Amino acid sequence: MPSSDGPFDVGLLSPVTVGHDASVADAEVAAAMVEAELALARASAALGIVPEAAATAIGEALTGYRPDPAALARAAVAGGNPVIPLVAELGRRVTGVDQDAAAWLHRGATSQDIIDTALMLVATRSIAIVDAALGDAVAALRRLADEHRGTLMAARTLTQHSTPTTFGLVASGWLLAVAEARSVLAVRLPAQLGGASGTLASFVELGGDAASALPARFADELHLDRPLAPWHTRRRPVTALGDALVTVVDALGAIASSVATLSRTEIGELAEPAEAGRGGSSAMPQKRNPVLSVLIRSAAQRAPGLAAELHRSAALTVDQRADGAWHAEWPVLRELLRLTLGASAHAAELLAGLQVDAERMRTNLALTGPLIVSERLALVLGPRLGTARVQQLVDRAAHGDDLGALLAAEPELGLDARELAALLDPAAYTGAGDAVIDAALAATSDGTLR
Amino acid sequence: MPSSDGPFDVGLLSPVTVGHDASVADAEVAAAMVEAELALARASAALGIVPEAAATAIGEALTGYRPDPAALARAAVAGGNPVIPLVAELGRRVTGVDQDAAAWLHRGATSQDIIDTALMLVATRSIAIVDAALGDAVAALRRLADEHRGTLMAARTLTQHSTPTTFGLVASGWLLAVAEARSVLAVRLPAQLGGASGTLASFVELGGDAASALPARFADELHLDRPLAPWHTRRRPVTALGDALVTVVDALGAIASSVATLSRTEIGELAEPAEAGRGGSSAMPQKRNPVLSVLIRSAAQRAPGLAAELHRSAALTVDQRADGAWHAEWPVLRELLRLTLGASAHAAELLAGLQVDAERMRTNLALTGPLIVSERLALVLGPRLGTARVQQLVDRAAHGDDLGALLAAEPELGLDARELAALLDPAAYTGAGDAVIDAALAATSDGTLR
Amino acid sequence: MPSSDGPFDVGLLSPVTVGHDASVADAEVAAAMVEAELALARASAALGIVPEAAATAIGEALTGYRPDPAALARAAVAGGNPVIPLVAELGRRVTGVDQDAAAWLHRGATSQDIIDTALMLVATRSIAIVDAALGDAVAALRRLADEHRGTLMAARTLTQHSTPTTFGLVASGWLLAVAEARSVLAVRLPAQLGGASGTLASFVELGGDAASALPARFADELHLDRPLAPWHTRRRPVTALGDALVTVVDALGAIASSVATLSRTEIGELAEPAEAGRGGSSAMPQKRNPVLSVLIRSAAQRAPGLAAELHRSAALTVDQRADGAWHAEWPVLRELLRLTLGASAHAAELLAGLQVDAERMRTNLALTGPLIVSERLALVLGPRLGTARVQQLVDRAAHGDDLGALLAAEPELGLDARELAALLDPAAYTGAGDAVIDAALAATSDGTLR
Amino acid sequence: MPSSDGPFDVGLLSPVTVGHDASVADAEVAAAMVEAELALARASAALGIVPEAAATAIGEALTGYRPDPAALARAAVAGGNPVIPLVAELGRRVTGVDQDAAAWLHRGATSQDIIDTALMLVATRSIAIVDAALGDAVAALRRLADEHRGTLMAARTLTQHSTPTTFGLVASGWLLAVAEARSVLAVRLPAQLGGASGTLASFVELGGDAASALPARFADELHLDRPLAPWHTRRRPVTALGDALVTVVDALGAIASSVATLSRTEIGELAEPAEAGRGGSSAMPQKRNPVLSVLIRSAAQRAPGLAAELHRSAALTVDQRADGAWHAEWPVLRELLRLTLGASAHAAELLAGLQVDAERMRTNLALTGPLIVSERLALVLGPRLGTARVQQLVDRAAHGDDLGALLAAEPELGLDARELAALLDPAAYTGAGDAVIDAALAATSDGTLR
Repeated sequence: MPSSDGPFDVGLLSPVTVGHDASVADAEVAAAMVEAELALARASAALGIVPEAAATAIGEALTGYRPDPAALARAAVAGGNPVIPLVAELGRRVTGVDQDAAAWLHRGATSQDIIDTALMLVATRSIAIVDAALGDAVAALRRLADEHRGTLMAARTLTQHSTPTTFGLVASGWLLAVAEARSVLAVRLPAQLGGASGTLASFVELGGDAASALPARFADELHLDRPLAPWHTRRRPVTALGDALVTVVDALGAIASSVATLSRTEIGELAEPAEAGRGGSSAMPQKRNPVLSVLIRSAAQRAPGLAAELHRSAALTVDQRADGAWHAEWPVLRELLRLTLGASAHAAELLAGLQVDAERMRTNLALTGPLIVSERLALVLGPRLGTARVQQLVDRAAHGDDLGALLAAEPELGLDARELAALLDPAAYTGAGDAVIDAALAATSDGTLR
Repeated sequence: MPSSDGPFDVGLLSPVTVGHDASVADAEVAAAMVEAELALARASAALGIVPEAAATAIGEALTGYRPDPAALARAAVAGGNPVIPLVAELGRRVTGVDQDAAAWLHRGATSQDIIDTALMLVATRSIAIVDAALGDAVAALRRLADEHRGTLMAARTLTQHSTPTTFGLVASGWLLAVAEARSVLAVRLPAQLGGASGTLASFVELGGDAASALPARFADELHLDRPLAPWHTRRRPVTALGDALVTVVDALGAIASSVATLSRTEIGELAEPAEAGRGGSSAMPQKRNPVLSVLIRSAAQRAPGLAAELHRSAALTVDQRADGAWHAEWPVLRELLRLTLGASAHAAELLAGLQVDAERMRTNLALTGPLIVSERLALVLGPRLGTARVQQLVDRAAHGDDLGALLAAEPELGLDARELAALLDPAAYTGAGDAVIDAALAATSDGTLR
Repeated sequence: MPSSDGPFDVGLLSPVTVGHDASVADAEVAAAMVEAELALARASAALGIVPEAAATAIGEALTGYRPDPAALARAAVAGGNPVIPLVAELGRRVTGVDQDAAAWLHRGATSQDIIDTALMLVATRSIAIVDAALGDAVAALRRLADEHRGTLMAARTLTQHSTPTTFGLVASGWLLAVAEARSVLAVRLPAQLGGASGTLASFVELGGDAASALPARFADELHLDRPLAPWHTRRRPVTALGDALVTVVDALGAIASSVATLSRTEIGELAEPAEAGRGGSSAMPQKRNPVLSVLIRSAAQRAPGLAAELHRSAALTVDQRADGAWHAEWPVLRELLRLTLGASAHAAELLAGLQVDAERMRTNLALTGPLIVSERLALVLGPRLGTARVQQLVDRAAHGDDLGALLAAEPELGLDARELAALLDPAAYTGAGDAVIDAALAATSDGTLR
Repeated sequence: MPSSDGPFDVGLLSPVTVGHDASVADAEVAAAMVEAELALARASAALGIVPEAAATAIGEALTGYRPDPAALARAAVAGGNPVIPLVAELGRRVTGVDQDAAAWLHRGATSQDIIDTALMLVATRSIAIVDAALGDAVAALRRLADEHRGTLMAARTLTQHSTPTTFGLVASGWLLAVAEARSVLAVRLPAQLGGASGTLASFVELGGDAASALPARFADELHLDRPLAPWHTRRRPVTALGDALVTVVDALGAIASSVATLSRTEIGELAEPAEAGRGGSSAMPQKRNPVLSVLIRSAAQRAPGLAAELHRSAALTVDQRADGAWHAEWPVLRELLRLTLGASAHAAELLAGLQVDAERMRTNLALTGPLIVSERLALVLGPRLGTARVQQLVDRAAHGDDLGALLAAEPELGLDARELAALLDPAAYTGAGDAVIDAALAATSDGTLR
């Protein structure tokens, strides 16, 4: 049981991640380290660097082995990383199968080779999950953009009604952002293999010329990208991953921020999908909180700081392995993966069931009356009445006068009632919304934006 | 077992925290929430707001109860916080003891009352542990500052030898920083009680005038500070805590950074305490890495970003409970507590056993030869030879000439060999080191700096 | 003219700071460096370390001298800091008055002594301006809290109406936050004096025992705090200042966030002070944007990251002067001061003229109907009807049924119409608002919160 | 003169940027806004949306006009952005040429169209400068990697000597990082055009179907990328730019960190290019500080936080223009551009003249003696002597015994003196260094890494 075993984090204080972050659980990371050791043995054997028999014994002993992460974590403190005790434990297991094979385990590798590679593995798996969730989100957004191309609503800038827009156009912007983030997510995730100081000297020692082919073979075994060179202190793979993850969370955070705002009691244009028990309160029985949006927003606030930490590690690295900057990467990358996993899962659910209240959108739009098209009036009437006169009329309307009547009374205009109504109709001032929606749908037809 | 129960974080990727962060484990946070509910029942009963019998039954049913954090975490997602399912579970337990008492549980409170209070409780306990470690660090630093007041070493600025200093003076600077951080750590940690929207309306409804005394009584039960008013959206208690924690880690990070630097193979003036198995490498049998410093530095890099996140939550809060900013606080505060716990434990160990190589310090100092006192020469000889001439002589010495011989050859100076030797002696140019050390020891005589 | 002189930043992209940041302009910082040199000469003369005649000549030559910051900035690059060229220029000026005096200028000091001290000076002056603005804000908030203690409005949690509150209570929370921030702002800002490596060796060389009194005397000359010891690499004075500044901006940011939200077209409960030309748009003549709040929020988003940078510099410092961390402090501290100056000026103006629409608050409150007191119903009726039944009735009301009628129909309750009306009256459920307001006013009677 | 005109920032506190940031000076940003207005007039005329005569008059009145940024900044406060007063001023100028043309200025556009576009313009220009500097850096690094492929030095991990490496291999890692960053810098920088709320309604009003072609034409006029759709609240162009910039600074920061470390007095393997007056100290005449590295590091510490702020703005945006998040972008993006400009200029200079002391590298390498190849011994001798025995021998050597003698005395090994010398020769244990260098040179043959 956790409590007897030391501190465990099951996400009690991070509900956005709960249930979605299995791929980055300590147990999975530990298992990925074993996978990296197995792949190294296989790749080395294939290139004649390790005897086939030894690789076979290592495979037999370790395939499917899942280390106890708690024990590993405790043992990691002395050397500052978990690979040292892991290799010792794996060695004992291999010895049980074939005494001679143990010497070939982890042979030539350094801790960083295993940790970096394992993190790329769990990142690969996490990204696949995120990508699937984003695929669902994109599908939902394509539907929303198309269905609501005629759903009129007020655009708002700096919190105030500005002009008419449509919810379809709003959704098409969200669509482009999510589809683009999904494309950004296709980063290169290379395996890491360089030996103690990234020179590959150990592998050359063991395998001579064959060593130069080892990193690529190692990567192939794990379905990771082939590294151009060891990247022990060239951390772009990590920062590119971080930038991609935060870009995903940015896109979802902006959606969640708008959903939360448009769900406000006074606005009520959007509502999160209704589900029994969701969004309740411990004190107020009537409440239905936009809890998915709130949780996504809590992730969106935090993700940029985490991605920045990865850049900081990259920028302040020294030597052939940094004295702290590398270690700072591990928990940060994991937390960023967790937040992206959780946020994308929640966003997929949110968008699939998003409730759009077109009636309320119209009612809210009407709050600003004909002033919602004041930009249009400035454009159309400005040249005829002068900017100052238009501003004057708009000001009077803003203080309660009937804008239609005011305009009808302007002799220079000579607008009849029908013309006036058309001019002041918000539905007639939604611009290129349809064309933009079509362009967004076309550009994201395969679910991404390239 | 963890693996069957969902993702667990035992610190596999955060070795700096392993073994030191029990006080902020999910299980402890969950238990603190129960403590908060118990304290509320007791305080309410004391003020006549809850029947004594109900409070007694609640106490009987829940005292010592430790919820399963994994179950709680999973159930927290629907409402976005763990208090909603916790209260349901606690209610079932109370009902088992006394059917009528369950209605008095959590009565008048809102989720935020319980979460904020529980976090202040675990913070209080964590701070006590940190404070004890810092006490040990201060004791070690007082000893180092005093013992090494005569241990000459090179001061370095922008990586280059600058003037002589003593290791005692260096240690006295670390001492002042740690002692001051310890004082900063004495922040006010108030209980939170305000009801649904921080108006205390529910408690007034239940207890009338007595309600106004409830928050203080509630705080007293938990040995927390009494709140001046509900602070649901006034988050200074959280940011003050965060600022204090990062201030502690700053002080330790600066020490670790200097220890790591002064442990470099080429410098070798300091070494971490030797302990079997510590600082080993998975690839290189000869290595002894400054692993405590490295881990502390990994924490020091990250802590500022976490404290900033707490400020961000405070700055972007809205309404009577924010739509994401509050939720972002929980995992961030916990992680900052974890890092501070780990860094302070490691620092106490590091400083208690720090190995100082006075001989190496002298050897390194000698690398710069008499140029190490060039500031002194500029001061003493500048007025007699002119600044330009001093610079000329120093430049020649920097290119290999014997500075003593050059100075002896300056007729205006008329320094004899003994005077010259005294002028160029680094030991005679350590300034007010002793006085500063004495002042630092005096100012920190009680282990803090106020 | 700027354009001929190199890049100049007048705040074109940082409107929140324009007009309020004169105290941290480059010209002021440069002038403060001169003041530091002057104070050093005076203090040194007072202690017999510098001849009176030299100090007099220095004073004559430099008092009131304001260096050209552009020339200084350009010349600063070679050495990485502006003091090196400044001292050269000052020396030329002193030589013009008294050839012998120039040798006594900057005597014994290092660049960091001057830069750190100059930054503490401009910080002191900036803080005085911020404090005055906060004083105005506190006065406005005391008035708002008191006047609006009966102004009913909806409290909102997670964007949704929760219970009734009063605007006076809301304002009292803002009051406590601003008053507390003002108290936090009273940090110690010490002068810096330590010589090349913080040992004071140069001053001991020049003045012997008298040197130990020099830092305090130097501080006194500038009305700065006396340093306990040189703090070249113990950066708590800088981080404490940063924490205080961000705490101020946090408090103002939270207010601005609420004002922006409550100014939304659909909510309209608050409005920024009307002033000709303020809040206009380049496209929409009808708009009145909450521009003060927007600008304050832009500062609030950024301030935490800046304060974190100061912690990072403190945590990653090494040696007796760090290789980059110290240099990172300067522009960051300046920008944080600028944001605080601008945000506080805008907030004072915002709060002094804040328009409160009590009528709109009531209208909005009514949107939720009697469900706004559902917390109360759960408390009062729960024990009589059972929690499940209350939830049932609330759910029916949430779907449109008349809650009063539903309750009147509950035979167990036996409430008559008057009792029912009282129960459902939001004005009768504002809790301890008045008492909390009184406590807040009492605690901040001197304009701060200690 | 600056001082009479308000606060000016010439970089006094940010020496890393001085002289390199002209392209992002306020005056240039203001001029870029004028360029955007001019391009809009031209593009609109080309599509028949604006009369040719009006566009001609606008061009005549405004081409080459450079607004006074100080006046603009002051006038920007009322509306919260500088476009409002800019358009007013430009209108006055156009009226002077052709009274009727002024009405066609800024026609259909909103402030954000102009600010976003102007920022993309100055970003484009800044990036060209950065790219050229990186090109120089890449050229220098290609030379260093090639020339020093045989220059033996100690690799270091966690501050301690680990194995041999070559400086050529180290330089090849820097090369890959800089070349990759240069490729990342090729981001898409689109023009912005959407009108008040990003619907293009104003342009449709003015030009009907032709409006849909306007954004692309507008972009073409400015040689910016064509936007797929308005991106008022879809801020990926800004975050992609920020990510690219920080990636550049990361790469340079890591180089600078290593140069600073390897320049330490005790290490002395690298030195910055010598130049009269560079790296001096105001107190110590003998010092030569690695000032370029220090300044680059000060930028590298700060850049991640700035890029994170851009993500935060993207993630927390709401509505059709956010209430603060957009405004926060401007100064942050500018500062990030400034840091990248300065860091890349300094890095180009640093690398072009970097002094490599191969002799010192050898001397330092020898400090660890034959233990520098202990990884090799573990690999080669482990299978023959057993891991435990190798560790034992290494431990004895680490305590001063002669490793060669110890190994010669091992009967199982049977190594003669020549074999032993070869085994212990660091030059024979540099792994695949040459091959990696060749691969790096080949991959970056066009100066980038794709």
